Amino acid sequence: MRIARITGTATATVKDPKLSGLTLLVADIVDGAGKVLDPAVVVADACSAGVGDLVLVVSGSAARVAARTGGLPVDMVAAAIIDHIDIRA
Amino acid sequence: MRIARITGTATATVKDPKLSGLTLLVADIVDGAGKVLDPAVVVADACSAGVGDLVLVVSGSAARVAARTGGLPVDMVAAAIIDHIDIRA
Amino acid sequence: MRIARITGTATATVKDPKLSGLTLLVADIVDGAGKVLDPAVVVADACSAGVGDLVLVVSGSAARVAARTGGLPVDMVAAAIIDHIDIRA
Amino acid sequence: MRIARITGTATATVKDPKLSGLTLLVADIVDGAGKVLDPAVVVADACSAGVGDLVLVVSGSAARVAARTGGLPVDMVAAAIIDHIDIRA
Amino acid sequence: MRIARITGTATATVKDPKLSGLTLLVADIVDGAGKVLDPAVVVADACSAGVGDLVLVVSGSAARVAARTGGLPVDMVAAAIIDHIDIRA
Repeated sequence: MRIARITGTATATVKDPKLSGLTLLVADIVDGAGKVLDPAVVVADACSAGVGDLVLVVSGSAARVAARTGGLPVDMVAAAIIDHIDIRA
Repeated sequence: MRIARITGTATATVKDPKLSGLTLLVADIVDGAGKVLDPAVVVADACSAGVGDLVLVVSGSAARVAARTGGLPVDMVAAAIIDHIDIRA
Repeated sequence: MRIARITGTATATVKDPKLSGLTLLVADIVDGAGKVLDPAVVVADACSAGVGDLVLVVSGSAARVAARTGGLPVDMVAAAIIDHIDIRA
Repeated sequence: MRIARITGTATATVKDPKLSGLTLLVADIVDGAGKVLDPAVVVADACSAGVGDLVLVVSGSAARVAARTGGLPVDMVAAAIIDHIDIRA
Repeated sequence: MRIARITGTATATVKDPKLSGLTLLVADIVDGAGKVLDPAVVVADACSAGVGDLVLVVSGSAARVAARTGGLPVDMVAAAIIDHIDIRA
């Protein structure tokens, strides 16, 4: 999984029918200190995240295993809002 | 998922039979401001996108979950035409 | 998917039994102008491609959906011979 | 698979229900000599690893094949604690 | 797929039970001339490869399709020992 900071939203009217009702969040993949590693991914919201939140991004077929996105054509979901990252080593 | 700008098309006569009838679009993966992050991917059209459109690209096995490309040998589809990206953070 | 130029072949005698009979092609992932983006991938041939051909490479589990490679342990196939790439934007 | 050094932990209260009870470890992907190749991935613990441990990271759908994480929305697990890496060539 | 040179081995006592009995090989992903493109991946042996061998690495869910690693939590296998790479273009 990856740590990401939600930076915005994307809206789409013309889309695959199974994407209807999903919230599409734009996010930057970051490291434990917030440094951007990979910018501007789009994640489906599976944990009621909002702009500014630090989230856990689950990618690949696992994105279709989350409760809110089961069976949908998505390859990245925000599956958890990260409360705290504790780097000790 | 990724944001991409459609830049052109690819045509192929000799191909896997399941690819028949699919529109193959060439696209650049971009960030929220349009900067190219990864050039020249090929996506199957699943949302009637055309050259110049900004689209949502779904990759991996999720590409076979979209309505128009179910069960086809594709690993990237344009699943939505992006109307607007709102970056706030 | 990706655009690739076939540059050679690979041969293997000792191999997983399901790989028997497959043609293994060495290819460079390129952009629309032929610039190498990622060198020296190995793709299973699913479209009778040969050295010098520009092909459409399908990756991941989708490689096992192509007609010639169904159920085989391959993660990249040449699924089509590209006739023409038309970049307009 | 990849070699990774566990550097910390991540905690999340608001999350997909299937993530409940999982330990989320932050890790750096490293080479055989410990050089960081890719920082700050998050792996689900499937081998009772802790901070400082060198682990084997399994990614993609294989992460849902490990005994402790079967069927969960995770794309990376720490599947083994590496005792020793022997580089000879 | 990718070409890789086996450079060593990894050993693990504490591990997911399904990894028992597998040989874990450390390898560098290389191009056709042997130049390292991506160092220090770990592959499960599915073709009796050893240190110094040039192998074909199959990644992703396809790694669970090889005869020796079916259903195991692995995402990369050495599926063939490469005898010869012939680059002509």
